[in-house]
Amino acid sequence: MENFEYRNPTKIIFGRQAETKVGEEVAVHAKKILLHFGGGSIKVSGLYDRVVASLKSAGVDWIELGGVKPNPRLSLVHEGIHLCKQHNLGFILAVGGGSVIDSAKAIAMGAVIDHDVWDFYVGKGEPTDALPVATVLTIPAAGSESSTGTVITNEEGWLKRAVNSELIYPRFSILNPELAMTLPAFQVACGAVDISAHLMERYFTNVTNVSFTDRLIEATLKTVIRQAPLILKNPKDYDAWSELMWAGTIAHNNLLNTGRVGDWASHGIEHEISGIYDVAHGAGLAVVFPAWMKHVMHHDLDRFVQWAVRVWNVELDVFNPEAVALEGIARMEAFFQSLGLGTKMKDLGIIDDRIDEMADKCTRGDTNLVGNYVKLDRDAIATILRLAA
Amino acid sequence: MENFEYRNPTKIIFGRQAETKVGEEVAVHAKKILLHFGGGSIKVSGLYDRVVASLKSAGVDWIELGGVKPNPRLSLVHEGIHLCKQHNLGFILAVGGGSVIDSAKAIAMGAVIDHDVWDFYVGKGEPTDALPVATVLTIPAAGSESSTGTVITNEEGWLKRAVNSELIYPRFSILNPELAMTLPAFQVACGAVDISAHLMERYFTNVTNVSFTDRLIEATLKTVIRQAPLILKNPKDYDAWSELMWAGTIAHNNLLNTGRVGDWASHGIEHEISGIYDVAHGAGLAVVFPAWMKHVMHHDLDRFVQWAVRVWNVELDVFNPEAVALEGIARMEAFFQSLGLGTKMKDLGIIDDRIDEMADKCTRGDTNLVGNYVKLDRDAIATILRLAA
Repeated sequence: MENFEYRNPTKIIFGRQAETKVGEEVAVHAKKILLHFGGGSIKVSGLYDRVVASLKSAGVDWIELGGVKPNPRLSLVHEGIHLCKQHNLGFILAVGGGSVIDSAKAIAMGAVIDHDVWDFYVGKGEPTDALPVATVLTIPAAGSESSTGTVITNEEGWLKRAVNSELIYPRFSILNPELAMTLPAFQVACGAVDISAHLMERYFTNVTNVSFTDRLIEATLKTVIRQAPLILKNPKDYDAWSELMWAGTIAHNNLLNTGRVGDWASHGIEHEISGIYDVAHGAGLAVVFPAWMKHVMHHDLDRFVQWAVRVWNVELDVFNPEAVALEGIARMEAFFQSLGLGTKMKDLGIIDDRIDEMADKCTRGDTNLVGNYVKLDRDAIATILRLAA
Repeated sequence: MENFEYRNPTKIIFGRQAETKVGEEVAVHAKKILLHFGGGSIKVSGLYDRVVASLKSAGVDWIELGGVKPNPRLSLVHEGIHLCKQHNLGFILAVGGGSVIDSAKAIAMGAVIDHDVWDFYVGKGEPTDALPVATVLTIPAAGSESSTGTVITNEEGWLKRAVNSELIYPRFSILNPELAMTLPAFQVACGAVDISAHLMERYFTNVTNVSFTDRLIEATLKTVIRQAPLILKNPKDYDAWSELMWAGTIAHNNLLNTGRVGDWASHGIEHEISGIYDVAHGAGLAVVFPAWMKHVMHHDLDRFVQWAVRVWNVELDVFNPEAVALEGIARMEAFFQSLGLGTKMKDLGIIDDRIDEMADKCTRGDTNLVGNYVKLDRDAIATILRLAA
């Protein structure tokens, strides 16, 4: 186990009707805020009305900025920054899924500086301040509701890049599993894969003596595998939604990487796919992960065997570890497919070949190695993408 | 799963030599503090010297109060409160195990009020303020380094009572597994049982649909079962200590009771034993838990079967659930014994019969039912204590 520091300050307010508390929670921090959301779904569902009623009754005023799209765009972030500066707003409430929250975090960092917030996403400097952010979560998937991360897509060049900073841990996040019940099955599936991916990025590490966090990750992954199919069968299953939503937050709130170093190559590779083709992040991960695993499994076969046996209930065969690992990967692919997702790029409708371009962008022209478990150069990434084709 | 709110603000600083950061971390909060510790062990080990060197180099001054004993006493708490008021100290640093930390938390609550802090321990009012506390942990056991709890013994009547308040979450806790390496085997064993008990108090719940946190608790319990024997075999095993120490914190930092209601009857019963006989808390729990389980297992046999199968690897026999549960309890007793602890009161040297007195005190004269999983009256507690005799 490596030395670490850990503190997650996000207050979680979890359960039925939790969104009715949003006004009083916001009022602790600010009286005038930016209310940030996506398309019209929160208006159709009535969530928007409940949130603004709660804000009003707590005496909180707001300026609105809707329109966040999946793979949230830098241009809308710029609009949000402008609004915060223009109206002197000191707090941002994100109502939605990971895209809305990531967009809010970008605005929060950009509202307190004079240069372009995109600089942080391309590694020019680090944020030293940010407006406080809070969330009302509608999609269990990204884990952004209690994480240090934000991922934004710059339409100029379709670059999708991430920033991590403790400054953007949300102050509070409201998690009402009922709010997710209207999600289309495809989004449920993508969310389950995204959560699984956050767990596996952390699981595959070169740090030794991490058996406690190994077991916590396995426990969380098994929860996703158990609950997501129940939700697809009955989208009104509050209990299954509760388990999945809480698992999604814990998967990405940095607890499960304490003392270990995660990989994150698959996320990096997927960002190139969804940056160019604008596919759903979870759908892209379902394609990248099996290919990545087949490429790297011999790096530490024991770890793949432990994962296959403990998470996927593959029978241990100590004489054939490779077969055990491959069976684990096959069961993971079957799980993704059972959720209705494809595990090949062609399933995403990607039939042109921009593999070399993606490998090039992912490695910044072959100057950056990607991943920690196995460090991948341009050729390795192209190989993985071809395995995924 | 029940609705819940969760936020744990304690910053964890984990790893080798982490205590060298104590000065800079304290200096963020205060320039003059109460330094609270137990007997001479931190002076023998050199930890005291390293802590004061770090405080000095950060420009932090301190007043000392040593002498905390296991089952920390109210009289010393009163001394600490007097020192804080006399010297206008605004911060308490606890260097030690759960007893020192619990004592520091009691002082923190008492230093800001005019009445006796013991009032809170007997349910007269609730704290509304407290001085900030931080810790340098030397014993993985109580979990007090990142918890809301404090347990104090009042020598008048030997009453051992608890307070829980979010106000006493430590501001930061320094966890260096190396600091535990000099612990006697008996204390290692008691710590492992205490951690296991914190997990089982949470595990045995009547709340349904808590399978995610079930699995997290199982993962943590399996970690204790795996690592504690390794430490007893080789007390310098840093890796095993790391896993146990982090598991001990997670076991009691309130994450694992999110959405569920724990039992805590065994802790209540044990407090009566250690209140009267001044035995080590973990040693008392090793006696109470098997007896409690045998008394309550038929309340929800399925839960005991799940625990026996998943945690203790008992082979599932769906036609004989009682046998599966009993085998789980037997394996737990064997585990406690393998650590060198007894599982009967006579093993603690308790041969007189004050069972009715303890049952009476525990239920406040049979006016309070104890526990949540099964609510126990005076007779039930006496029955359990007789099972443990």
